[in-house]
Amino acid sequence: MNFEFSFILFGGELNFNTRLESVVKGGIGLCVGLDPVMDKLPEHVRSSAEPLLAFNLEIIEYTHEYAAAYKPNLAFYEAHGLAGWRQLEKTIRAIPEECLIIADGKRGDIGSTAEAYAVSLFETLNCDAATVNPYLGSDALEPFLQREDKGAFILAVTSNPGGADLQDLVCDDEQLFRHVIRMARRLNKLSNVGLVVGATKPDLWHDLLELAEDLSLLIPGIGAQGGDLDAMKRELKDYGTPALVNASRSILYASSGVDFGQAAGDAARRLRDQLVE
Amino acid sequence: MNFEFSFILFGGELNFNTRLESVVKGGIGLCVGLDPVMDKLPEHVRSSAEPLLAFNLEIIEYTHEYAAAYKPNLAFYEAHGLAGWRQLEKTIRAIPEECLIIADGKRGDIGSTAEAYAVSLFETLNCDAATVNPYLGSDALEPFLQREDKGAFILAVTSNPGGADLQDLVCDDEQLFRHVIRMARRLNKLSNVGLVVGATKPDLWHDLLELAEDLSLLIPGIGAQGGDLDAMKRELKDYGTPALVNASRSILYASSGVDFGQAAGDAARRLRDQLVE
Repeated sequence: MNFEFSFILFGGELNFNTRLESVVKGGIGLCVGLDPVMDKLPEHVRSSAEPLLAFNLEIIEYTHEYAAAYKPNLAFYEAHGLAGWRQLEKTIRAIPEECLIIADGKRGDIGSTAEAYAVSLFETLNCDAATVNPYLGSDALEPFLQREDKGAFILAVTSNPGGADLQDLVCDDEQLFRHVIRMARRLNKLSNVGLVVGATKPDLWHDLLELAEDLSLLIPGIGAQGGDLDAMKRELKDYGTPALVNASRSILYASSGVDFGQAAGDAARRLRDQLVE
Repeated sequence: MNFEFSFILFGGELNFNTRLESVVKGGIGLCVGLDPVMDKLPEHVRSSAEPLLAFNLEIIEYTHEYAAAYKPNLAFYEAHGLAGWRQLEKTIRAIPEECLIIADGKRGDIGSTAEAYAVSLFETLNCDAATVNPYLGSDALEPFLQREDKGAFILAVTSNPGGADLQDLVCDDEQLFRHVIRMARRLNKLSNVGLVVGATKPDLWHDLLELAEDLSLLIPGIGAQGGDLDAMKRELKDYGTPALVNASRSILYASSGVDFGQAAGDAARRLRDQLVE
């Protein structure tokens, strides 16, 4: 990576991988998923005028010290329409500058539509990275990779049971997700491409990391989904590219009472300590 | 399909395929893509307070007589953030009841997130159907298929050049998109599943329709993208399940002047006539 080059190109903005390295500080960074579900919010928050925002602000206040990144999942805001979108925008503005913001929308569409999504996520919402879906191929991903300072995490291996339906199919002698990883590497010309790899498939990790080579990682599935953190850490020990481990429910809903912020902060600190120790 | 059963279940709401059949009237229906791009809007529209909405209202006024469905592409609204989302909601409310509304967002995510997207598209935005991405597997699609009166069009073969990157890979002796179609058929328990198949791949049509069997179709790629309408019509002649052909740019931007509504209406009528003749 040519640090000076990226400095010149973007008037001080760093290349996305460099930014990611700086926030994870050489280890594995904690990403806090901001997925507020109304029914799960503490009762006193539910009655506020903007409950998703009120919840997020307290979560951010108590967790930002331990978080390398935040990942709002767009679905949980879109479910509330205009009011949800407004609270998403305000949430994003409240995230401290030293944390990266990953718009988790798993977008994917052809040419001009993908360009519009990139504008939405990187310019209008001002997020630093986005999760994207590979099914439509490389030309649908390229619009997300035009800015060196913004990153895209391409879905490779997802943490849900049905993920295997397509991802594990053997295509031309290797599983589909391996083709996705090769495609991601071909697209990584500006060092701004990452992979989403679920922590619930530990048997894949060794091969997967060998193939992923210089791609950064976003790892959901730890916590509520039951992925094995220690197994994952062993595999990541010698991986040279930054990784973020995401936790949502285990942090957001650590307590359902008035102390939910404090409890989220404690849960975030514990997980962060496990990641760096 | 058990008509009476669906009547009882949804208090008068029809099953999605039955609704689709009623709007395409036994032939191929026209779907008008509502993909407003600011730079392409006529100058006098661009200066209005809500330009996307002003544009859409006139497009709908002149085209609804010929349209079986409208398909707002969410990206073009999200690019404008809150203001865009507001204009999307107003656009959807302005579409006449006799036309179906397909939310084109190509969403796809795991369990609870997919449920939130289904709420967003089917309840909050009150659309009749959605386009969805199959990469995350069947459990990520099921939340979109819980209501008999709402449909989901699963991406199978897309019209962009890069579509082949994954979709044409040969997995266990057949191309990936064939696995997607089989998965779609397995999910079609309530007759509310369709496929998105691009019109730009005419060599695939014969086999594809044989495999698709009882799945409805949403066909982009006619018009600006250059798909061959006559070749497609020949193949669809004996297909028993309803199909929608989508056109966006060729209708929306038929004229860039003050007569854009009239020109869009003329383009919609000509294409509708070609579809039914």
